Amino acid sequence: MFTYTKKLQYTVRVDRPDPLYARQIQELIGGKYGEMSVMMQYLFQGWGLRGDLDDPRLRKIKDMLLDTGTEEIAHVEMLATCVALLLDGSSPEQQEEAAKRDPVVYAALGGMNPQHMIVSGLGALPADSVGNPWNGAYVSASGNIVPDLYANATAEMNGRLQATRMFEMTNDSGIRDMLHFMIARDHMHQMQWLAAVEELGGMAAVLPTPADFPLQKEMGKVAYAFMAYAQNPGETTSSQGRWASGPAVDGKGEFSYIAEPYATGQMPHLVAAPATLHSVPPGAKPGPDAAKMPFEEPPSLLEKIGSKLTDGK
Amino acid sequence: MFTYTKKLQYTVRVDRPDPLYARQIQELIGGKYGEMSVMMQYLFQGWGLRGDLDDPRLRKIKDMLLDTGTEEIAHVEMLATCVALLLDGSSPEQQEEAAKRDPVVYAALGGMNPQHMIVSGLGALPADSVGNPWNGAYVSASGNIVPDLYANATAEMNGRLQATRMFEMTNDSGIRDMLHFMIARDHMHQMQWLAAVEELGGMAAVLPTPADFPLQKEMGKVAYAFMAYAQNPGETTSSQGRWASGPAVDGKGEFSYIAEPYATGQMPHLVAAPATLHSVPPGAKPGPDAAKMPFEEPPSLLEKIGSKLTDGK
Amino acid sequence: MFTYTKKLQYTVRVDRPDPLYARQIQELIGGKYGEMSVMMQYLFQGWGLRGDLDDPRLRKIKDMLLDTGTEEIAHVEMLATCVALLLDGSSPEQQEEAAKRDPVVYAALGGMNPQHMIVSGLGALPADSVGNPWNGAYVSASGNIVPDLYANATAEMNGRLQATRMFEMTNDSGIRDMLHFMIARDHMHQMQWLAAVEELGGMAAVLPTPADFPLQKEMGKVAYAFMAYAQNPGETTSSQGRWASGPAVDGKGEFSYIAEPYATGQMPHLVAAPATLHSVPPGAKPGPDAAKMPFEEPPSLLEKIGSKLTDGK
Amino acid sequence: MFTYTKKLQYTVRVDRPDPLYARQIQELIGGKYGEMSVMMQYLFQGWGLRGDLDDPRLRKIKDMLLDTGTEEIAHVEMLATCVALLLDGSSPEQQEEAAKRDPVVYAALGGMNPQHMIVSGLGALPADSVGNPWNGAYVSASGNIVPDLYANATAEMNGRLQATRMFEMTNDSGIRDMLHFMIARDHMHQMQWLAAVEELGGMAAVLPTPADFPLQKEMGKVAYAFMAYAQNPGETTSSQGRWASGPAVDGKGEFSYIAEPYATGQMPHLVAAPATLHSVPPGAKPGPDAAKMPFEEPPSLLEKIGSKLTDGK
Amino acid sequence: MFTYTKKLQYTVRVDRPDPLYARQIQELIGGKYGEMSVMMQYLFQGWGLRGDLDDPRLRKIKDMLLDTGTEEIAHVEMLATCVALLLDGSSPEQQEEAAKRDPVVYAALGGMNPQHMIVSGLGALPADSVGNPWNGAYVSASGNIVPDLYANATAEMNGRLQATRMFEMTNDSGIRDMLHFMIARDHMHQMQWLAAVEELGGMAAVLPTPADFPLQKEMGKVAYAFMAYAQNPGETTSSQGRWASGPAVDGKGEFSYIAEPYATGQMPHLVAAPATLHSVPPGAKPGPDAAKMPFEEPPSLLEKIGSKLTDGK
Amino acid sequence: MFTYTKKLQYTVRVDRPDPLYARQIQELIGGKYGEMSVMMQYLFQGWGLRGDLDDPRLRKIKDMLLDTGTEEIAHVEMLATCVALLLDGSSPEQQEEAAKRDPVVYAALGGMNPQHMIVSGLGALPADSVGNPWNGAYVSASGNIVPDLYANATAEMNGRLQATRMFEMTNDSGIRDMLHFMIARDHMHQMQWLAAVEELGGMAAVLPTPADFPLQKEMGKVAYAFMAYAQNPGETTSSQGRWASGPAVDGKGEFSYIAEPYATGQMPHLVAAPATLHSVPPGAKPGPDAAKMPFEEPPSLLEKIGSKLTDGK
Repeated sequence: MFTYTKKLQYTVRVDRPDPLYARQIQELIGGKYGEMSVMMQYLFQGWGLRGDLDDPRLRKIKDMLLDTGTEEIAHVEMLATCVALLLDGSSPEQQEEAAKRDPVVYAALGGMNPQHMIVSGLGALPADSVGNPWNGAYVSASGNIVPDLYANATAEMNGRLQATRMFEMTNDSGIRDMLHFMIARDHMHQMQWLAAVEELGGMAAVLPTPADFPLQKEMGKVAYAFMAYAQNPGETTSSQGRWASGPAVDGKGEFSYIAEPYATGQMPHLVAAPATLHSVPPGAKPGPDAAKMPFEEPPSLLEKIGSKLTDGK
Repeated sequence: MFTYTKKLQYTVRVDRPDPLYARQIQELIGGKYGEMSVMMQYLFQGWGLRGDLDDPRLRKIKDMLLDTGTEEIAHVEMLATCVALLLDGSSPEQQEEAAKRDPVVYAALGGMNPQHMIVSGLGALPADSVGNPWNGAYVSASGNIVPDLYANATAEMNGRLQATRMFEMTNDSGIRDMLHFMIARDHMHQMQWLAAVEELGGMAAVLPTPADFPLQKEMGKVAYAFMAYAQNPGETTSSQGRWASGPAVDGKGEFSYIAEPYATGQMPHLVAAPATLHSVPPGAKPGPDAAKMPFEEPPSLLEKIGSKLTDGK
Repeated sequence: MFTYTKKLQYTVRVDRPDPLYARQIQELIGGKYGEMSVMMQYLFQGWGLRGDLDDPRLRKIKDMLLDTGTEEIAHVEMLATCVALLLDGSSPEQQEEAAKRDPVVYAALGGMNPQHMIVSGLGALPADSVGNPWNGAYVSASGNIVPDLYANATAEMNGRLQATRMFEMTNDSGIRDMLHFMIARDHMHQMQWLAAVEELGGMAAVLPTPADFPLQKEMGKVAYAFMAYAQNPGETTSSQGRWASGPAVDGKGEFSYIAEPYATGQMPHLVAAPATLHSVPPGAKPGPDAAKMPFEEPPSLLEKIGSKLTDGK
Repeated sequence: MFTYTKKLQYTVRVDRPDPLYARQIQELIGGKYGEMSVMMQYLFQGWGLRGDLDDPRLRKIKDMLLDTGTEEIAHVEMLATCVALLLDGSSPEQQEEAAKRDPVVYAALGGMNPQHMIVSGLGALPADSVGNPWNGAYVSASGNIVPDLYANATAEMNGRLQATRMFEMTNDSGIRDMLHFMIARDHMHQMQWLAAVEELGGMAAVLPTPADFPLQKEMGKVAYAFMAYAQNPGETTSSQGRWASGPAVDGKGEFSYIAEPYATGQMPHLVAAPATLHSVPPGAKPGPDAAKMPFEEPPSLLEKIGSKLTDGK
Repeated sequence: MFTYTKKLQYTVRVDRPDPLYARQIQELIGGKYGEMSVMMQYLFQGWGLRGDLDDPRLRKIKDMLLDTGTEEIAHVEMLATCVALLLDGSSPEQQEEAAKRDPVVYAALGGMNPQHMIVSGLGALPADSVGNPWNGAYVSASGNIVPDLYANATAEMNGRLQATRMFEMTNDSGIRDMLHFMIARDHMHQMQWLAAVEELGGMAAVLPTPADFPLQKEMGKVAYAFMAYAQNPGETTSSQGRWASGPAVDGKGEFSYIAEPYATGQMPHLVAAPATLHSVPPGAKPGPDAAKMPFEEPPSLLEKIGSKLTDGK
Repeated sequence: MFTYTKKLQYTVRVDRPDPLYARQIQELIGGKYGEMSVMMQYLFQGWGLRGDLDDPRLRKIKDMLLDTGTEEIAHVEMLATCVALLLDGSSPEQQEEAAKRDPVVYAALGGMNPQHMIVSGLGALPADSVGNPWNGAYVSASGNIVPDLYANATAEMNGRLQATRMFEMTNDSGIRDMLHFMIARDHMHQMQWLAAVEELGGMAAVLPTPADFPLQKEMGKVAYAFMAYAQNPGETTSSQGRWASGPAVDGKGEFSYIAEPYATGQMPHLVAAPATLHSVPPGAKPGPDAAKMPFEEPPSLLEKIGSKLTDGK
């Protein structure tokens, strides 16, 4: 459960209104790698983390997810406040006044997000810089903490990258002050998720993920081979990389390199669809009718399940 | 530019039709971490990678992106073929036949994706296992190769995790054969993106990302501090983690821990909206009119730009 | 079934083309609270309204839904015509001409919706002011007329609010004439849905909605209590509101106020996932295997159903 | 800024796993009227509320928005926990076990959300009951508190309606216990938003919304008239409603009824598109060229603005 | 403007409720090629059609678009009614009753759309058979009637195909009666759009579309050549088709065949991004600074425009 | 399976950066009718095409789909390269430089897609010109090659139309050179899909689609009749078209014209919902309870199926 204080996590102020920048900074609120994404991602991961109560590593990580997920709500709040301040002075009336004084400023307003005026009335939107509403599909929460930690590190890398770009795009001292706080937090957050990987044994220990799928069940001979797909092998320099030879980064094999495009499968063929699907053009024949089709002698359900236990794959 | 061969990368066959499994395996085609995503992600990253021609690291990585992006098109092809084979025998007529023999089988068909019959006529859809169409927002391509490599490793971790789950959900020897190939490829792909990070100097070298934003411009004192947000500090065990003390994983600082929720900002207040926005309820006052607003004496554009060069932040 | 007349419901004309305004007014066509939404919402509500033929209140409301739903199609038509007129003179050729005469006008065109030129060829789009296509999720039709009437009043309030903002954003006498008609219709529509609530007995009669769920089945002691969540109760003034004390607006209880954040639940714990989900990191233990899990002794289906009839909750 | 306690707001437990119900209850998490929606809606409204600090009504409402927005985060948490508990025992292995014992139970699993197994590994998703990811467009925050309060009441009405339906769809005593708490909270929340309308003067005072748009600027003669659109006026009974005669609910006029479909506009005609848009079919003529088009003698920008001040509409 | 009659266009009745079929038939309402799509597509095309009033061909086509667009609203109405009838008897209570009598019927309900119970209360949704809300992007309205007519014919072909599949999937005599009406209307609609192409001169006259782009401005030598992309030309039989030799179907050239994959472009190279974008990894160099970049000596705007008039391409 | 060459299919160069045009040309990459759509559409159609191996027509068409689908990947690549080149010189730093020299150029940048700077770092996005991510629903692949061929022709018509509009919107000789290649390819592609229809017997042979649904099962008397829906028949001129009289274009009937709006169905009525759905307002009655509802005496499943074989419809 959650509580709030009305104080912001860090001061938010702007030197002057700037509706174009208000539009752009929406990316940090409702973009794929914005604060709504990390907030929801950490909370859903934390709420869904399963595991043995006696394993302190998982307990600590679950707590960390709630700590930082809760911090991110405050980041959404700060940015929403920032957008509102940037939109002061963007009413229709004020734009007319501005246009009277400086037509270029007026023209620049063509780049404003019209929903900031029409829909939200000078407030932030749960959307990105081009107006796409934030989307639940941005959240990664797989039930396995390892891919999730890498997803989190990735999100913070992109978050900090976008924030530094936004920093360069303004000289407003208030915004730069707020961003220099957020950029530092993204720095910490990048590190903390990768530090949690270290708690779990480090990169080699968790590779390949999931680590508990028996390696003998995968097709070993292609598990350490880089495959090139240039028509003319001379065109690609990928053979010279760290990934093409030497010990693999999972510490469990040696990298190799297959320069020739690898195609070992068949040329597939699909039987015609049955008449009831109405898929055949004039003059073509429909597929075999039901009497001759696979359901005719289905394995019993029990048989189907039983057979699996002794199945090598 | 691209060319094709009609041979599949690896053999695709199924023991028997299974429309429920056909629905589920769509996740590996058109889900957030499906093959359409990695195919598009690697190609867009490769097509957009910028850099000095004399830097062989970037050239090799660009080539690797094209190699593996091209391989992934073949994975979409294999899975699309697999879905079509699983849907053989799912016509209305055949379902009736099946129902005559075994009502339970018929009932299970309630879980089939109806679009596999109505929309695609027993073919794969560019969609996930619940029918959401694949979406360009699944693609991460930031222009900075570091977050992109981590995004790629994350995608392959989730991809392999989902493939191993799908492996457990069937005992069809054909599908298990195909998946044991794909699981191995995902193993290699996870490693190759992290191997590319090693080419760039390794994790510590690339942290924090972006590495070229001057650290003195971020707010140093919160860049290495874990902040807890439990109301009652005793509730969270996050202080015991690798991320709470000791050398930071970027090799540039020491982790610290702030147990008390950190709120240093103001209580924000937003001025009333101007009358022309019609945002005030009965009895309330609109905001100041245009004549008193910020655009009145804007800094000239040149002044605005000039001032930035000497701005500390 | 429907028929049409080629005459518009009300005159549409514009003083002069204005491609920026054309982009903005799309919000009234295809935005969440645009005319496509109310049209579809009223029609789907009307088509789906269930009820006793002998209840004249429901019959009248069903007819009203069809009346006004049909009127709204004409509003989409008017706005689509308006957008087309605003886009006259926005061809590439004409933009060049405009730019020759006045570079500022040209620059302002940067804010035009490019799809108005490339995709629709100077016609309206079924999309909002930032280009999001209209979406069926905007429609509220719950099968219970009470929430639907409130949804309708809400839609018309937002619709009129947006139309008055658009009115302020132009001085084109033609558009203002059309909008002063639409604003009046939105005025009427707001009232008619709330008048229908009065037919059903008024606000107190319909609260809480749904009115036919037995109040003794909900947890009475929290049904009239405002709960505050400020960490420091002094921070929030919510205790001073109409909702914090006195008779409740449903006429069935007294409001009370709980200043202390209310958390009576447990600290949840989720058991580890079973091995077949591959969710555990290296060194952690999977959950109990199937032989010990809940499905082992499921209640029979009939038993499950029977037990409900005597269940207090 | 926010903090958390690990205790849930109210106890969450389930009698037995039920993956079908887990899929259905997702509607209350990530559906249009689910808890993610109200949480985000109240927070965005609160963060964006503008107004005079000296107006205690607005201050109280702002605080109420933060109070209840914060409460709703806890509701998402409870439901996410509930979904995880319902999914215990849904691993591939456990489904096989279940199928061995009772084929009907197995068949019912065809209705499970496959992403609960493949994507989230037995955890909740930020999505609705058919798998649509939650979407920022569900949030209503208009900058004017009146439509927002009605949107909030509507959301809680739909929320409670859906929760009572979910209550009927299960006989699990744990879930019914959790829902009987949530249904009560939705009861309170419905009332509190309408109580806030009373603080602002009540329904008549806020109608029509926005209340500060001068009524003389709208087309008065259609602002109180119900318009019927039945081809044959006898078909509709809408003339008999509260909305067709008598005093209007805004207390500012009298309702009237127009039985004859109202079409006073012109038959619109759009000029041909210019040649550069390539919109004309063979044999047709393109529109007038740029030299004769409206941009030729545009009013100056200042002129355009000046003319508005004296514009009646 | 539109009016309605309460009579349906054609009788809708069902033999018996069938919630699975209700879910499936949603595809015909809110799917990409459902009735909402054609209704909106024809209306938007009609409202946006531009052209010379003296050209009777365009006037007739515009009228036809309004005629058939209006008919399609009635089809949405019929299908919405049909879904409601199919859902009778799907309440929680009734499902329990059904389950008592026949567990297989109960199990099949796992395939029901849960939103039909929870969200719409036994009514139709503006969504497709897997629950995706209808989307404005389904509408094609290009401003050029030729692609639009082909889009319309395509929509009706898919519409009829899906309706015939739905026909096969039921033996309900009421539904089959309704569908045998709709299938006939789709038959007519397919033909009428292609008949309109004949009015415009027929297929050869309108090809290539747009017909008014001067053929000498396109690269003639690849305008009639089929290009094969098989790595090994022997793999593809595309050389044997009607499209590989002989007179082209536009009557303006001869088809030819290029068996060898055609790649005449350069190997592209992108310069490094400037430092302010923070796109370079450790050890790499940023791109040239602003002083050396393209904006330094931009052509004047007038110059830019003037140069075009004499530009061959 | 696929391979690549690093050479582009055709040369891509630009005279000068132009971030506005970069935004606009995204429509050709990730718009509904952009290159991502046709690439995916042809590949999914090809991978899913079913049919008799001995039917050379289907084999050739399948090969053609793979040939052209593969070509389209190269078109995405060319356009992605083009966007990157157009964005050179759009860094924050460079925009400031540009603004110093020419404020109008700066103002025009307000129309740039902000994600090109913040998200992709001067690279192409898998999105359209207003920022909507590309969507799998753009793909049409029905399992019946006839509607698919018409969908393909439609896509190429819209593709060429949009490309010619983009051609008019620039005077950059590099872009015009690239587009004059693509416009020619779209010309060829339009024709080849219609040529494939000719292989299948031509338009009359394939109409109505699907051709194998027995015509006697559709309601013959409305299969050749144009229905007008103008309230006043004199308003519409649709009776004068090719579609209103004379031989139908399928060669199987005669067109007729029904001027009077055609409504032969009943006025529908829906019974009240059962009490457990909580859909009734205060004072209204719920529907009949379960004991009297349709599931009471369901036909046995076998009976249901058996009855169909002798069903006329």
